[in-house]
Formats: sequence, C-alpha cells, structure tokens
Amino acid sequence: MNELFELGKTGLASQPFSKLLGVELLSLSQGNAEFHLPLTDKLKQQHGFAHGGVVGTLADNGLAFVAGTVLGINVVTSEYKINFVNPAVGESLIARSSVISSSKRQAVCSCSVYAVKDGQESLVAIAQGTIAKI
Amino acid sequence: MNELFELGKTGLASQPFSKLLGVELLSLSQGNAEFHLPLTDKLKQQHGFAHGGVVGTLADNGLAFVAGTVLGINVVTSEYKINFVNPAVGESLIARSSVISSSKRQAVCSCSVYAVKDGQESLVAIAQGTIAKI
Amino acid sequence: MNELFELGKTGLASQPFSKLLGVELLSLSQGNAEFHLPLTDKLKQQHGFAHGGVVGTLADNGLAFVAGTVLGINVVTSEYKINFVNPAVGESLIARSSVISSSKRQAVCSCSVYAVKDGQESLVAIAQGTIAKI
Amino acid sequence: MNELFELGKTGLASQPFSKLLGVELLSLSQGNAEFHLPLTDKLKQQHGFAHGGVVGTLADNGLAFVAGTVLGINVVTSEYKINFVNPAVGESLIARSSVISSSKRQAVCSCSVYAVKDGQESLVAIAQGTIAKI
Repeated sequence: MNELFELGKTGLASQPFSKLLGVELLSLSQGNAEFHLPLTDKLKQQHGFAHGGVVGTLADNGLAFVAGTVLGINVVTSEYKINFVNPAVGESLIARSSVISSSKRQAVCSCSVYAVKDGQESLVAIAQGTIAKI
Repeated sequence: MNELFELGKTGLASQPFSKLLGVELLSLSQGNAEFHLPLTDKLKQQHGFAHGGVVGTLADNGLAFVAGTVLGINVVTSEYKINFVNPAVGESLIARSSVISSSKRQAVCSCSVYAVKDGQESLVAIAQGTIAKI
Repeated sequence: MNELFELGKTGLASQPFSKLLGVELLSLSQGNAEFHLPLTDKLKQQHGFAHGGVVGTLADNGLAFVAGTVLGINVVTSEYKINFVNPAVGESLIARSSVISSSKRQAVCSCSVYAVKDGQESLVAIAQGTIAKI
Repeated sequence: MNELFELGKTGLASQPFSKLLGVELLSLSQGNAEFHLPLTDKLKQQHGFAHGGVVGTLADNGLAFVAGTVLGINVVTSEYKINFVNPAVGESLIARSSVISSSKRQAVCSCSVYAVKDGQESLVAIAQGTIAKI
C-alpha cells in the first residue's frame, strides 16, 4: 500500500469529528483523494437529505487531505467556496478532490461531492478552496 | 416569545445532524440569528480545535435560518464561501448571522462564527452565501 | 459556423466594456466557451501584470457566456469566487469555461484563466460561480 | 492629509487599468477605504448596467487597498468571492471596504459596492476575500 494512503488513514483516524460522522478514506495519492461516507439518519436534515454541514465537512476533508499530498501533512483550511447543485439523497456520499495549483505555502484545490443512490452517482456539490501549510 | 424563534427551534429540532452536534438556537428575529454550540471532544480534529466541518455546519445553519426569517421556512443553501481566520479553540462556538440583501426568491446573508474561551469571544470564521426559497 | 458562436459574438460586441478591454470570443458551443484577450499596457497594474479586474472580467464573461449556452442568452452573474494562483504575465490571456451543473433557472460553471507567454500557457486564476436566467 | 491616503492615491495612479476605468480614491485610513467610479458608457454591458467586471474591479481594488493599510503597500489579491445583488444602474459606483481580520502575512477583508442614482445609494454587490503580503 502506498505511504500517502497510510498517512491519510492515520490522520483521519485522529479526527474525532470525522469518526463521529463515519468518514472513510478510499484512496490518497499525489494530487488526488477520494472519501466515502455512508448516509446514516443522524447525518440528515429535516427533509431527509444529508445536512449541508455533512457535505461541507466532506468537502473540507477532501480539500485538506489532497493538499496534504503536496504540502505535507500539517495543513489547515484557509477558505473555500461550495455550490450545492442537487439534494444529497442516497446511501452514501463520495468526495473526489484534486490539486489545481500549489506553491510552497499553499494549494488551491477542488472537490466534487457525489451522492450514490441505487449504485448511481450524481453530483451534489462542488467546492474550491485554499489550504495552507502550517 | 416571538414566533420566529419558536419556528426556528422547531426547525432545528427536526434536523438530526444539528442535534448530533448539539447546536442550539439562541435568538431569531427578522434579519438576525444567533446559534450556540458547546465544543465537546467529538467535534474536534487532530489538533484539538473544532473541525472545520463543525464551523461550516454552524455557518450553514446561520445563513439558512436567518434567510428563513425573510423568505419563509422552506429554504435551501445554494452556495457559500467561508474564510477561517483563527483556530476554533474554546468552550463553545457562537454564530451570528444577518441578511445582507433579499429578493422574493433568495437572500444573500453573512455569518460570523466566534470561539468563546474563558468568556472571551474571538472571530473564527466568516461566511457569505446565497439561500434560496424552495 | 455554429449558431451559438454567432450569438455569442453578437452579444460580446454589444458590451462596451468588453470592447474597451479587447475581449474576443474564440469558440462557443453547448457547455463550453473560450475567450482571448491581448494584454495591452492599459490592462495592467503597477507591477506590469494584468490587473485582477481584467482577469475577473474575463472570468465573469467566461462564466456568463457558457451558462448562456444552456440557459439562453438572457443571463446575469449571481455570484462567483475566484482564486488567483499566478501573476498574469504574458502577451495575452485565455479563458476556458464549462458548465458543471444546470437547472432551468441557473447554472453553476467553472472558468480557468491562462496567461500566454512566448506561446506557453500557465494557469493564472480559476473561478466558480452561479449564473441565473433573467 | 493623511499619509495612507497619499500612498493610496499614488498607488492607484500607477495602475493603468484603474486609470482606464476612471477609479478614484475617496478616503483611505487604517482598516477602511472608499473608492468612487463615474459610470461612463464604456463601462457598461448590453443592458446598460455597469459590466460585472467593472464592479469586480472596484471590489478587487477595495479589498487590496484596505488590506494594504494593515499589511503594507506590497500586496496581491489571493482570492475573493462576490455576490451581485442588484443591477449596477446610476451615475456612479461607490466601494467601501474594511478589514475583517489580519495576520502578518494576509488579511481577510470585505467590500460593499453601491450604485448612486439620483443621489440615492443602493447595494449592488458584496465581496469577501483574502489579500496576501508579497
């Protein structure tokens, strides 16, 4: 198994909030990351969709972890912007992120969040943000 | 008690994810909202700060609920942007939101999130976004 | 020539500000647009780079025109977010935009702006935003 | 006259693009800036409103110059987000910006852009962004 993936899983396991939600790291390599989150009832809002905060958390993790593959593991999210384009309905969420541009100090990354329903993926949200090296 | 505040508390209570985190509505009136969140360990990341997803969830709620005071209760978050300006360290978080501009269909709102440590507030993040009437 | 491209060129020619800058439409088809802008001295800031407002204008046009290919020509920019990743130095700028997701009323689009120097393209900025049908 | 205001006017005069548009600095002090822009025909789009790029340029200047009052004059715009809330119709635009939070390296700022029509101001756009020290 690759080293970045192992580092990422250890990092994720050290985040109580990610554990509370049930966030899983599917893959992590130079410039790319993929997360998975089973959509349990506790993660929903009043209409039965995933709460925006759940989608946002997944996007935040996606941006930060992928930035860590080019900046090193000590990073913080400086800012991001997220557009919600469809209700997050389904069995689980998938977040796929990539590095758009990076310098020594920070990386600008993108993360797309998909809902998986009956095995079909549909785009739920897209985020773009800046991650800084501490 | 005012009607908006009662509607808001009922709305918040119907969100399993807000309950999971422990989000509380402090006040809600035409164009203004205030939320409170005790910072328990389960809400943290690996450095002991509140996870960015927690701050983002509070901002998302802040934006959506304050928009609901001018648009009606059936609203969804279309998009927002958030800047994290200081680590979220302390006993609790406070989110204060206001409506910047609204039309029949949507409202542009702002939400500031503060950490409360030893009774002192410090700005943690600021968000600006669009909430749409369903 | 395709009809969207002709409509786009007519639309661009009706914008005095785009003419003032010298913005040219290179291509326009369902879901994709490409603009070109020669970097004359009047478009620069004090360091000799293209002014951020020039890059922003190109991004705004990129987002709006590509949205127009799925929403119809009467659109307005609701909001966008832009990250500047490298100084805009070179002979010209290229903006390439695409539609990420669209509904009847609005489209979420992305636009990347590149500087062309000695024939080499480098990414200058990336924008993500919402365009609404009027 | 205060020194920041003089420095700001000199800085603005060194930007060919700001001169092309006709941007004027009204005031500049620690943490606050105000710009003015007469809305001539060349700054408009096809509906007779100010082009979004004009509003964006004013916001970009507003964010960068106000950040310069706390970071020093050598700054660049890292990123911003802008919501357009009303058409920019009138004789002129006014941009008022302030510093939300700053560190040694960067500042998060806000800028509101107003249209002035028959002496009445109305909010046109609001921007929030990060300005970095070079």
